This record gives sequence, C-alpha cells and structure tokens, in this order.
Amino acid sequence: MNTIGKILTLTSFGESHGPAMGGVLDGMPAGVDIDLEVVQRFVDRRRPGRSAVSSARDEKDRVEVLSGIWQGKTLGTPIGFIVRNADARSADYEEIARCYRPSHADYTWQAKYGIRDPRGGGRASARETVSRVVAGGIAMQALHCLGITVEAWVDTVASCDDVDQMEQVAQQALNDGDTVGGIISCTVKGVQAGLGEPVFGKLHAQLASAMISIPSVHGFEYGDGFAMAAKRGSEVMDCFVKRDDGSIGTLTNHSGGIQGGISNGEDITMRIAFKPVPTLMREVSTVDLDGNPVRLSPRGRHDACVLWRAVPVVEAMAALVILDNYLISKTNVL
Amino acid sequence: MNTIGKILTLTSFGESHGPAMGGVLDGMPAGVDIDLEVVQRFVDRRRPGRSAVSSARDEKDRVEVLSGIWQGKTLGTPIGFIVRNADARSADYEEIARCYRPSHADYTWQAKYGIRDPRGGGRASARETVSRVVAGGIAMQALHCLGITVEAWVDTVASCDDVDQMEQVAQQALNDGDTVGGIISCTVKGVQAGLGEPVFGKLHAQLASAMISIPSVHGFEYGDGFAMAAKRGSEVMDCFVKRDDGSIGTLTNHSGGIQGGISNGEDITMRIAFKPVPTLMREVSTVDLDGNPVRLSPRGRHDACVLWRAVPVVEAMAALVILDNYLISKTNVL
Amino acid sequence: MNTIGKILTLTSFGESHGPAMGGVLDGMPAGVDIDLEVVQRFVDRRRPGRSAVSSARDEKDRVEVLSGIWQGKTLGTPIGFIVRNADARSADYEEIARCYRPSHADYTWQAKYGIRDPRGGGRASARETVSRVVAGGIAMQALHCLGITVEAWVDTVASCDDVDQMEQVAQQALNDGDTVGGIISCTVKGVQAGLGEPVFGKLHAQLASAMISIPSVHGFEYGDGFAMAAKRGSEVMDCFVKRDDGSIGTLTNHSGGIQGGISNGEDITMRIAFKPVPTLMREVSTVDLDGNPVRLSPRGRHDACVLWRAVPVVEAMAALVILDNYLISKTNVL
Amino acid sequence: MNTIGKILTLTSFGESHGPAMGGVLDGMPAGVDIDLEVVQRFVDRRRPGRSAVSSARDEKDRVEVLSGIWQGKTLGTPIGFIVRNADARSADYEEIARCYRPSHADYTWQAKYGIRDPRGGGRASARETVSRVVAGGIAMQALHCLGITVEAWVDTVASCDDVDQMEQVAQQALNDGDTVGGIISCTVKGVQAGLGEPVFGKLHAQLASAMISIPSVHGFEYGDGFAMAAKRGSEVMDCFVKRDDGSIGTLTNHSGGIQGGISNGEDITMRIAFKPVPTLMREVSTVDLDGNPVRLSPRGRHDACVLWRAVPVVEAMAALVILDNYLISKTNVL
Repeated sequence: MNTIGKILTLTSFGESHGPAMGGVLDGMPAGVDIDLEVVQRFVDRRRPGRSAVSSARDEKDRVEVLSGIWQGKTLGTPIGFIVRNADARSADYEEIARCYRPSHADYTWQAKYGIRDPRGGGRASARETVSRVVAGGIAMQALHCLGITVEAWVDTVASCDDVDQMEQVAQQALNDGDTVGGIISCTVKGVQAGLGEPVFGKLHAQLASAMISIPSVHGFEYGDGFAMAAKRGSEVMDCFVKRDDGSIGTLTNHSGGIQGGISNGEDITMRIAFKPVPTLMREVSTVDLDGNPVRLSPRGRHDACVLWRAVPVVEAMAALVILDNYLISKTNVL
Repeated sequence: MNTIGKILTLTSFGESHGPAMGGVLDGMPAGVDIDLEVVQRFVDRRRPGRSAVSSARDEKDRVEVLSGIWQGKTLGTPIGFIVRNADARSADYEEIARCYRPSHADYTWQAKYGIRDPRGGGRASARETVSRVVAGGIAMQALHCLGITVEAWVDTVASCDDVDQMEQVAQQALNDGDTVGGIISCTVKGVQAGLGEPVFGKLHAQLASAMISIPSVHGFEYGDGFAMAAKRGSEVMDCFVKRDDGSIGTLTNHSGGIQGGISNGEDITMRIAFKPVPTLMREVSTVDLDGNPVRLSPRGRHDACVLWRAVPVVEAMAALVILDNYLISKTNVL
Repeated sequence: MNTIGKILTLTSFGESHGPAMGGVLDGMPAGVDIDLEVVQRFVDRRRPGRSAVSSARDEKDRVEVLSGIWQGKTLGTPIGFIVRNADARSADYEEIARCYRPSHADYTWQAKYGIRDPRGGGRASARETVSRVVAGGIAMQALHCLGITVEAWVDTVASCDDVDQMEQVAQQALNDGDTVGGIISCTVKGVQAGLGEPVFGKLHAQLASAMISIPSVHGFEYGDGFAMAAKRGSEVMDCFVKRDDGSIGTLTNHSGGIQGGISNGEDITMRIAFKPVPTLMREVSTVDLDGNPVRLSPRGRHDACVLWRAVPVVEAMAALVILDNYLISKTNVL
Repeated sequence: MNTIGKILTLTSFGESHGPAMGGVLDGMPAGVDIDLEVVQRFVDRRRPGRSAVSSARDEKDRVEVLSGIWQGKTLGTPIGFIVRNADARSADYEEIARCYRPSHADYTWQAKYGIRDPRGGGRASARETVSRVVAGGIAMQALHCLGITVEAWVDTVASCDDVDQMEQVAQQALNDGDTVGGIISCTVKGVQAGLGEPVFGKLHAQLASAMISIPSVHGFEYGDGFAMAAKRGSEVMDCFVKRDDGSIGTLTNHSGGIQGGISNGEDITMRIAFKPVPTLMREVSTVDLDGNPVRLSPRGRHDACVLWRAVPVVEAMAALVILDNYLISKTNVL
C-alpha cells in the first residue's frame, strides 16, 4: 500500500514527527553511478524554509543511505534510506488531536484506522514526499545515463501565469492568512518510443496515479488534456513525418508523447493541478471528535503556497515511473 | 500488465478481431447474488450500433461466464468470462498493416513489440473495454448489497453542455467526416468513510489510473479539480458539521468525497476528459512502415463520438476500484 | 490469488464441472513462434484415461487459444485460453454436497468461503492443473529458443523406484481399492548463471512454491535436499573449476544448480513428493455438514496414482518459473 | 523482489557490512499493542555469540523502530525499522573479493549483477535474516491477540535427534574445522479453519516459499511430507470427527493442518532442512575471478551450526505468512 512501481519499486514510511522518514528503492539496476551529493541537492529543493511564503521549519533533511550503493555504484540490492525528523515541536499539534481540521485528512484517517498520530499530521503530512524525492533523485541519475531528462515548473499560481507576479500572489495570500493553489507542468525529454503498458498500465495512467498521489493534487492531464474534450478530431491529430535522420516523428504533439498508452518518442507533457492547502493562518470553525462545533486557532508553521516545493516531487514521481517502464520494456522481447 | 486491482483483480485479454475478448475477475467475495441478465444489460449499454453517431458494427456481445458463479451466487473463485467477436471483417483493415494511422496506437505498438495485430486495431481497439464492463457489471451487484451506487453521464460533447444539443453536435461532426471529444462526469454515492490507501494508493489515484486507462481519455479530476488551482484555501474549505443522525459530514464538497486519499462519506465526484477519436471519415496523410508519405482512405465503421458508449465503461471502472478498496479496508484492523 | 509469476503471469480459472477451465498467460515476450499442436500434445500428456491406473474420464481437453497468438507468433498481449469441460456427470457428485470427504478440500473450502461447488470437487479438483499445462506448454517454446530444456519423471511410486515395477505397484493399490503416492524428479538444463532473486524470491523458493501448489504435493527439495541436513559441510561442497571453454563450473552439484538463490549454470535439480490421493474405491467413514457420522460409498472415476499425469504439470510449473526469472533478469542492469 | 506478502508485506534491505540492516513492515492492522522489548528479546534469540558453536561476533542488534508504532500501538502505517551493523571488520573479507568461495553466493551474485559487495557476503549474508526476525516479532504480537502461537525447534543436527547430544555433534564438527546441517520443525497452533488461497497461493505453498527462502534451506515438507510418498491413501487419511464442543476436527493429522491449501483448524506442522553452511575453518580450493585455481584460508568468525540461531527466523517467517493469510481471509466475504 505504501509501495509504487513494478520492477523499480519505492516503499516509503515515516510520520511527520516520528524519528525519521525513509524508504526502500528496490529494483534499481546494478552498476549505475550514483552521486549522493546530487541526490542531496535535489532533496534540498523541496526543503521548507527557502522562501518567504514557505514554512519556516528548517529540517535540514540530510539523506542517509543505508544500503544498496557501495563505492558510488548501485549494487542491484534494495537502497534503504532515512531522513531524520530533526525539528519536531509536537506541542504545537496537541489541539489537533481533539478535533478534525477542515479539508485535512484527520477525519478520514480516524475513520479508516480508528487511530492516528496527530503530531504534524502524522503520515498524512506532505513531509511524506521527502522519501519520494530521495528515490527520484537516485532514479534520475539512471535516466541521465539513458539520455532522458525530466523538468517541471510552476505554470500558474492561483490564476496568475506571469512568472514575475507569482511570488507576489502567494505573498498576498499569506498576508491575508490564506493560501493559494496552482498548476505544475512537467516535460520528459529523450524517452524512446515503446514505453508503457497498453491496457490498465498505460504510461499516462501510471503517471496520473503517481502525480495525483502527491498531497493536494486534484487533477491530471497529459498532452492537450481537458482542452481536447472541446475539440474535433481533425484539430488534434498528430501527423507522422519522416525526420532527417530517417526516424518517424509527429508534426504536432497534442498527444503529449503518448499514444495508446505507449510513448511515441516525442516529449512527454503533463499538467498537475494543486488545490490551495487547507492550513489557513486564521481561526477556523470545525468539530471535535464527537461532532461538537469548536474554533481552531492557527498553530505551527505552514506554507501559503506549496507549488515551488512540489516541483522536485513532481520530477521525482516522473523519474520513478519512466525508469520503471524502461526496465519493464526490456522484457517485451526474448 | 493486463491486470488491475489488489484484492479484487481484473485480468483482461483479447484482440478486436481475434476469436474472443475476455477476462478473469478474481477476488470477488463468496456468496454474492449475481443476476447475469443484469450484467448483460449493462454490457449492452456500451454496444455499438445503438445510435446514429455510433459505429454500425453490431456485435451482440453475448457474455459467457465460464466459472466462479454457480446457481446465481459467487463461489469466491475466479470468474472467467468471454465475449465472442462475432462480426469481424478483417479485410477492411489490411491497408492499416502497411502504414501508421495518425494519433492511433499503430506506431507505438510496433515500437514496443516489433509486431502487431492490425485487424481492427488489435488489442489497442476500444473493444478491449467490453471486458471491463462485464467485470464492472458483476462488481456493481456487490456494491448494491453495500448500498453503494455508481452513476456516470455525458457532461459535455465538444464545447456543448446542453443535453438536448449534444447528439446534434456529434451528428454535425459525423456529417463533416470528423469526430468530437467531451467530458463524462461520475458520482459514487453511499461510500462509507475510510476507503482508500493514503500514500501511493490514494482512492483518487486509483480512480485516476482506472479512468485514464480508458482509451481516448486525456484528463482526470476529482472534486473541484483543476478549478481549485485558481482558488484560495478559504474558498474551497469543506467545513465539518454534525448531522441530524449524529454523524459528521461536510457542508460543501469541493474535496469530491475524498480527503487525504481516503473517502469521507460524502459523494465521490470526478470528471474524465475524452479526446475526439482519431478515426476520421475522410482521407488522411500519414507514413508507411518506412516513413514514406502515404494517403489513407477511410475504412470500416467508426464512432463520431464515443462518449455515450463510454459511460458504462466509466461506471465499471469506478465499481471495480470502489469494491476493491472496500475489501482492502476490511484488513485495516485485526 | 489465482495468479502466479511476476513478469510472466498465469491467471487461471475454472471449476471441474463448470463450462470450462482456462487461463490468461500475460507477459509472454512478443514475436516468439508458438506451435499450438505442440502445446496440445503437451496437454494430452496429463489427460486422464491413458493408463489402466488413471481415471477413465476421457475429456479430450482441446485447447482453444482466444488471443495473444496470431499467425503462429506471440503478440506480446495476454494469451487467453480455455479448455471445455466436455464429460461432466454431475450426478455422480451429489452425495458429496452433503458431507466432507476425509483428506479432501471439502471442509476447508466450506470454512473459507461458506459455499462450494461440490461437482467433481469444483475448483479444488486436480483438473485445475490443465490450465497450468497449457501455459507451461507455451512457455516451454520460449525456453527452447533460449536453449533451456525441462524434463521430469516418476522417481518412485510408493516405495518402489524400479521403473519396471511401478505400474504394477499402482495396479495392486487399485485392485485393493486404494491409492499410492510417490516422488517426481525434475531437471532443468541450459539455464544461464544469474537467474533468481536472492532474498525472498530465491529461484528455489519460487520453484518450491510453484511445485508444492500442485494438488497432493507435500514436500519439495532441491539439490541434495533433505539428505544434506545429515551431512557435514565438507561433504557437500561444490568446488569450482575452469572448464575447457574458459567458463567456470562446479565439480559436483549438491547445490542443485542454485547458490544463494541464484542459478549457477549447472543443471537445476529438484524432487517433489506426492501424497496418495484420498479418493479410495472403498466405503469410508466421515461426517456430514453437521458433524454427524456418515458412510460414503465410492463414486466417479478416480486415479489410483496421479504421478504419471502429474509429470507434465511439474514440467509446466518449472517452465513458467524459469522463463519468468529469465525475463526479470533482463532488468538487472540498465 | 525484496518484498514478501500480499496484505502484510515485509520489504527488507541491507548488506552485512553496510551501515544498517532494516525493513518496512506494511499492512499491519491498526491499534495492535506492540511491546518493543518483546520484539527485542525475540531478535536477541538469533544473535550470534550465544553458544560455543556459533560465531563469536557480538553485534548487539538493537532494533530501532522509526515509524508506524506510537504510544505502544500500531498506527496502520508502515513500520520502518533499522538494526545498525555495529561490529563490521571489513578487512577480514578483502581476499573474498578476488575469488569465489565454493558453495557460497559469490559467483552467482557476480553473474547476476556484474558487481557485488564482498564484505561479509554483502546482502547474501545470513545477517539479512535479522530484518525478518524484527518483522516476525511484531507480527507475532498480533497473532497472540488472535490466540495463535508459533513454535519451532531443532529436530536434528546432522543425523542426531537426541537433544542432549546435538550441541556435542556440532562441537565435534567445529573441532574438525567443519560444519553440520540439520532439520528444524515448526508448529502453528490456534489457526482457524479457512486460511490460505487454494490454487497458487496454497497456505503450504506460501510457507514453503517463506521457509526455503531462509539461507541454507534445501527442503520443506508439511504434515507427513516426504514420508507420505511411500504410503497408501488408506494409511494417511485424516478422518473427520465431531468434537465435544460440536466442532468438526480430524482424528489424525497427516495433512499437517492444511487440506487443499487451506487450514483445517488442526495444528499446522512442517519441517525445514538446512544444509551445513559452506564456511569451513580449514583451507579450501577454489578459483579466482578468471577461473584460475587458488587456495583460500579461513577468515572471520563463522557458525559451525546455524540451526539454533535459525529457530527464531523460522518462527518469524511462519508468523508473517499466517498473519498475512488471516488478513486476506477477511476479504473472502462481503
């Protein structure tokens, strides 16, 4: 349940204010050069405390690899890793144990398990994504050997798509004790034609599942996405052409690099919609465990906009899915 | 690769013009009453040849259950079933073997496997969804025992959201030798709080993967979806209230019935975006297997708009995911 | 639950007296030549009615492939197949529905599912193995392309290991209304070094699971097996030597071709112990559904010794496991 | 590949002389009381340095739980844990990097991955089993809530089955610079009828796979096992009787508590055969990486007989399989 992937699998664990977050990345091919400092820098990109509109919590997030990499190379064995939770102030969260914060996972978690760790949201915290980023940072280095690159960026914040204005939009929400959502775009370049499983495991189905499993995500589209629903077939057809090198490509890329669930060699493009996080810096009304109304004061340190911190998470999920499918594709012929 | 689900699994098989489509639905609880005529009527809803804008191919699609149901009850054993491909005119498709149709799966399939069955698109045909509908029709009957209902409907065709006009929009496209996309909405009612796996297997991640794996789907959103990205947190917060029966609910349902990846007892809502199918009834330019330009004349019988036929497919996928998660949830406590 | 394998998976279905047995073999590499007549002959080897001591039921067991193979080649898509249950005389089995036959699965099946198909043992019948043999017969042809051969044989019947006497031992048991067990040996030749997953998925763990899942099997050993438990390390050490072709091999093969869970290039050897089947041709005492004592008269047609019929089942399971591990091994490096 | 189980899964990691061994136990039901000191004492039972014939290495093996257990109860979230490798003297193993020890996994590991961590056998070391024992020690506490107990013991050492003589037999082998194998028996009591998946996932198939995946194991049998192969059906039939409490049981238990792959409520019995470990305390002949003959002197500290240390490993694997199947069985009915 806490595992993603088929050949390349990530199993993650950890509660926000427990001793550590961590994971096991299994199925990494043997003999791949891994620079752990590059992984650390990738992880640093999702760290809080790096912009005015992000949480002030400074966790350092030092990645400790416990197995699977030796003398700078993967062994083919599972890569166990942990990231200690250094800066947990559990006292901030005691009130949460006695009520359900609106639009958080407190209520559903309680309904499912009959028990929950309320400290910092426990495992429902977005801190869980640190394990994804560690694993993605490792997978990315294998992709680079294959000539594949993954790049994500903040496309819109609220309704603003002007890069120069985005931070200001988020700052304004913060000033108002509010939060804002937005959209992240992601492109994967250099993927050969032929990756993806054509029925339930379509490449975009795997990407959709991986992306929408990131906390706060409410929508996923690839290629021209929802816009295609309003079009005619003749408007979104990607015509084949012979390229100068003799290979076959398409003139346009409405399909987002995937046709019939399988990569076609064009750039893989997708967009991921994030809702505004529900932790407002203002008092909110909610109910206690018995359903009685209570007022909840803002506590802790929270992000007004998680988009920038989510960019490496999106990249990590893309890297894991693409590498897994690359490995699976090796079994398509004898 | 052709299997979906964890406890309740559907493994499907079949090429469009091979002897039969089929599947194995495993993990169905034992002792559930199944009315096979109800399953058949559900399957009939996705059959072509039922409207002017759908394919004229009349396949009958008689479901034959081979195991797992005896004397009207599930045995707990795998339910094997087939649907014969009765009306295949393979001659229509010979030209396809010699070129790659634009925006179809011909090229990617060839890239992946080095071989493909070109007759009717082979396994890349949307005919594959008949197996999903059979399985979904069975799962649905277990859901009804649990008081859960699934309903999907065509929300828009092209940019038209007026129910009275939709068929006309599709007919116009057909007259023009073109096709149109659209959006299907789906709501699941009666789901208890507590279903879904909170990290990679979030309930909406499983739904996203299941829905976007349907042929032609390019986008998925749940709750307020992409629209939430343009909102502030205070605008989309679902406040908890105590209901008359003492239970806890929410005043609004921007979250679409899922919070933190787990159902909260409200209606589960989602929208699925379909691209217009790429089979135009007009001549198109493309390339042959060597990349040389060719003209391809329209052949066969194709849908101008697949949305109506896709409605039971969407319902089937929802039913399979929800029932699977209901079963998984039984293991959450000793 | 009715699926085995990781990349190459077999999902089986079917009750003994239902319409058909069948399965889906998914993950077969594309482009492999498959001679279905060879598959049929392999299936014929497990058919009843071929020796005096086997069941007189003549089922023909004609294999019908429904997908995944086209023009004699695998497509890379799932291979769906069925084998009709032609000769079911359900009336023979009505008494079984009212009691629990000793050492059969009637009681445990009822305890698990609260329902069972009593006709011919339902899914608990050894007839289930026909699906394994169909799949194994297909996998075998891919193994042959790789230079790998699988051979199993009856090693002992009861305590008799003299080939000339075995049939007589079984005949004597039949004359006495009794049954006999025995041991089947299996050797896989031509497997390259490097197949198998070294921790939980050790090659011999997969083989053990596959073999012991065959009805009536009560024990599995590989290499020198149980005999090694009585030995000293110096007696069972397989010393490495350089072969004439420069490769490394071992002087002896106590390890049975597997070290640390991974094949070492030597012959893979294993032995599988079958209990005598519990269907005696004499009256037996047992209890009815309420636990009250009843006498049960012999009915139907049953094997005095299943060993010969089980030989192709053992070969099939070996073929499925080895081919799956060959495919997995392709993902060990980038 | 380093994961076992379906609902309750253990994913393990770690090389013998890397920073730590560890694992993730996922799928544990929520709200189960866990006493970590009891887990630690269970882990201590497999520790080396506790008898004259075991390795002198004293590792302490302090279990550090990082997630999933809070305030003495399981949260339903994955339980991440590590055990530091405290006492690694890698210098002892440098010679191993340059040759293949006979009957070890050096050669096969190299063939599979093209790289290996030679320090202490890397991941091929039996030290890997510490993760199994931690997870098993946790699972055991859930089983106790269900009234299920697991007990294993050393049945034979070499050919000695006299408990008073066993240690002496092992000591004599140690004196001779040799090692001895043996057999461990395991019994699980209190398992309700109805656990196990009746086809590929038979309860004994899962147990076989789990047990034979323990390093050095070469054989598995349940019930009367290999001895049944020499018997007649009438000799090993377990007749049903009505017990005083009205329940149905069997007079004898040749079946080992499992019929048709499903538990029948009787004690589950099995025997596991261990080969003598191949690390002799005397010079051995082998080959270097190029196949040239070399002599290898004994190094490090090794066990003459691993049987006693393996007892908790056997119990752990039994606990994991039984609890997993208990959870799966909850999904058999709606």
